[in-house]
Parts: sequence; structure tokens; C-alpha cells
Amino acid sequence: MTTFRLDERLARDSQSILELPLCDVRLSRDSRWPWLILVPRRADVSEIFELSEDDQLQLLREQTMVSVALKGATDAAKINVAAIGNIVRQLHVHVVARFEGDPNWPGPIWGFGAPEPYTDEAFSAMTQTILDALT
Amino acid sequence: MTTFRLDERLARDSQSILELPLCDVRLSRDSRWPWLILVPRRADVSEIFELSEDDQLQLLREQTMVSVALKGATDAAKINVAAIGNIVRQLHVHVVARFEGDPNWPGPIWGFGAPEPYTDEAFSAMTQTILDALT
Repeated sequence: MTTFRLDERLARDSQSILELPLCDVRLSRDSRWPWLILVPRRADVSEIFELSEDDQLQLLREQTMVSVALKGATDAAKINVAAIGNIVRQLHVHVVARFEGDPNWPGPIWGFGAPEPYTDEAFSAMTQTILDALT
Repeated sequence: MTTFRLDERLARDSQSILELPLCDVRLSRDSRWPWLILVPRRADVSEIFELSEDDQLQLLREQTMVSVALKGATDAAKINVAAIGNIVRQLHVHVVARFEGDPNWPGPIWGFGAPEPYTDEAFSAMTQTILDALT
């Protein structure tokens, strides 16, 4: 059995803000959208259907909890939820708050333009806003 | 209580190939990727978290079943699963077979280029391949 080890690109592009029973909840360092990434702590899994049934149910629970919190925290027009993983094969689920007029609205966020980093203060503030909504 | 009525754009861009207990399983008319769309037959729902808990579980079951079948039918490099809905607000889940070198690989399919319709024969063949894998 392989030990879970976070993908290097996920580690670089996002930062952990909360550990849920299954997933590491990470905030993207790209400030263009409030963008969370759920990473199940399971080794060698690329597809949701490769998780055990129990883990699939737990991922759904955590995805729902995070989606509701992100909607509440941001009053987004739409929450985008996606497991793509064509580049980073370690299973991860994007939960993104979208707004009319945001960069690339109504198109997808993936592969669009260049990331815009937060200031440290803005990253902390966004983290706190989301954690407040989650708890 | 509003009656479910399929969104006009979903009706135009895809065709039903199977009815599951919760979802209408639709094949996109765009031949660039084997692309299924699951539409829960529930009115006035835009987000997965707006479904009842039972419906969320059923959507997960159907999404997993369809993902496994699509992977088996196509031997795709990656299955992309996404609920975006920035344009069409009726809840729908994309399940897409992706291949290295396909149009826009490894970027997302949404909003990319122009659809390429199937011939009637190719659409029927793809439908049959997927239904065989599903049953």
C-alpha cells in the first residue's frame, strides 16, 4: 500500500486551510476567483470512481459542505465543481465561486490566463472568511 | 412545486440515450469528445447541494456508473467530471472522456472552439458503445 503524498504542483499552487476527515481543503493562491481544492488523502487515485464507496460518500459530504460554505461566504452567482486532473493526476476536486464579470465568465477557469497571487493579508482574510462559513 | 422541464439548450446540444432513476443520460452532439451529460429530473435546481440528500447520493451513484462505463467503452486517459452551469443554470453534470492529443488537451473542453457534429451513423455507433458498457 502506497502512502499518500500531496502532488508537488498542488502543494505549490494552493495552501491547506483545513483538514476534513477525508480531504485536505486547500485555497488556491490565485486571487482571481475564490477557489478551493479538495484533495482526498488517498494514494494512487485519479478518478472519483476509484475511491471506495465509503470514500465516495465522504467526498460528496465534504464537497457539499465546502460548496455551501463557499456560496455563503462569497454570495457567488454559481459554484463550479469539477474533477478534471488531465495535468495533475492525483485526484482533486475544484470548488470555485464564480461571479458575472469575473475573469473568463461564463467560461471555465482552468487553463485561462495567468494566476494573480494574493497579498499575504488578502490570503489570510479569504481563508478566515471561508473558515468562518465552514464552522 | 414546479414540473421539471429540460433546458432548451441542453435539448438542442445533446440527445437522451438512457433514463436512469434520477438522471436523463444524454450524449452531446459534439463529436470531438465522447461527452455525456447527466441531467437530474428535478425542477429549479442549479447546484448539487440544492438536491435533497437522497438525490445527491443517487446522482453520485449514477455519475459513478456512467464514468466507469465511459472509461470502459473508450479506454480514455482521463474522465473529466464537472458541474459548471454558468450558462445553462439547470443542474447538469458533464462526464467526458479525454485523450492525450484530443482537441484542447490537457485544457478543458468547455467554451473551446466550435462543435463538430457526428454523422447519424457515428452518433448511433457511439450511443451503442456506451449503452453496451452501461448494461
